[in-house]
Amino acid sequence: MDDLAIRLGVHDLIGAYVDCIDEDRLESWPDMFVEPCRYLVISRANHAAGLRQGVMYAASRGMLLDRVFSIRKANLFEPHRYRHVIGPIRVKSVADNVAVVHSHFIVARIMQDGATSLFATGRYLDRIDLSGPTYRFLERIVVLDSDKIDTLLAIPL
Amino acid sequence: MDDLAIRLGVHDLIGAYVDCIDEDRLESWPDMFVEPCRYLVISRANHAAGLRQGVMYAASRGMLLDRVFSIRKANLFEPHRYRHVIGPIRVKSVADNVAVVHSHFIVARIMQDGATSLFATGRYLDRIDLSGPTYRFLERIVVLDSDKIDTLLAIPL
Amino acid sequence: MDDLAIRLGVHDLIGAYVDCIDEDRLESWPDMFVEPCRYLVISRANHAAGLRQGVMYAASRGMLLDRVFSIRKANLFEPHRYRHVIGPIRVKSVADNVAVVHSHFIVARIMQDGATSLFATGRYLDRIDLSGPTYRFLERIVVLDSDKIDTLLAIPL
Repeated sequence: MDDLAIRLGVHDLIGAYVDCIDEDRLESWPDMFVEPCRYLVISRANHAAGLRQGVMYAASRGMLLDRVFSIRKANLFEPHRYRHVIGPIRVKSVADNVAVVHSHFIVARIMQDGATSLFATGRYLDRIDLSGPTYRFLERIVVLDSDKIDTLLAIPL
Repeated sequence: MDDLAIRLGVHDLIGAYVDCIDEDRLESWPDMFVEPCRYLVISRANHAAGLRQGVMYAASRGMLLDRVFSIRKANLFEPHRYRHVIGPIRVKSVADNVAVVHSHFIVARIMQDGATSLFATGRYLDRIDLSGPTYRFLERIVVLDSDKIDTLLAIPL
Repeated sequence: MDDLAIRLGVHDLIGAYVDCIDEDRLESWPDMFVEPCRYLVISRANHAAGLRQGVMYAASRGMLLDRVFSIRKANLFEPHRYRHVIGPIRVKSVADNVAVVHSHFIVARIMQDGATSLFATGRYLDRIDLSGPTYRFLERIVVLDSDKIDTLLAIPL
């Protein structure tokens, strides 16, 4: 498994992840994680302080799926979509079939009436399992640049 | 023609396309399509409903060039520019010298007085001809996330 | 040194540059340039007019470091961060261990209170030195799409 193949596979995983969220195929989202896993959305300040709980958290595919069900059923929020763009993807290290990968994002939010706004910016800090035919996330920590976002966050980032 | 060469060529075509639009070299824009071609800008809702006509449409290089001439001559709108950023580019399939490629975009609009705003977000659904020395679009469908955009759209996306 | 290796190295340099700025490790920013170098932030209109001085300028690592010191010490502005996303990176030519590379960017600005806005868009016009173990910038010209930005610009782009 050479460096280039890992880069391409990581790029594909991150592209598929973004597409899954932005195209509202949320039921497929948990399949991109291994079992158990760690998914955490946290503000920069709390992440820098070493806190391990954030505004969204899951430790298994079941917990990820619970999040999807609550979005589908509860309808507590005005319908909207995201559109992600991703900054340069950087493979920081590879060892024992695990890649540490950093990237960053800007996400626009599109409301049902078409109103579009800059919604969130931040970093993805990933640990990715390279052992299977398809790469999956062991851990995806979403570090938000802003602290202001919490109450608006329903769909995963 | 291997997988990597196709990825790099597709990346170059999409990069050149964006540069052509954003740097206002619109006269070169039709050269990025084969003859005949299909270029369509359509809202997500209309695309999902299977409609084949959108807010901008062309079936040949001549029609693309007409669009450029009308922008240059009519001056019906306040001068502005775009700046695109592209999300992960995904080659979905390759067969018979045609690649199906999906990507997505966020576009900022810069008015002549410098005012900058988030203008459009959406997806590119491309069929790309790989048979020539330079890749070209057989089809580029621009699916807009928002329905609100129509009357503001003059320059192609 | 083949085409692919250059593409990957250029991608890594641009990714590291963005990460250095956005994660506020500005003291490492000058190390990404050779000595002497040229760093220039200029508006599109002034760049098109052939002007060689812009809203930010440096001709050596020492001048880049002076910029960092003034940010650290003067505190003349309300604390904020950037978040960059980069459009397709295009290697335009390679000769004599120098690559000419164009890319473009959208930058969001995040204020200390969390308020996030679209801050700047434009192009990077780079000349990159490929001769060392790590690629470095011989020249990075940042061409801003808007003329409105000057007084707000403190952190390098």
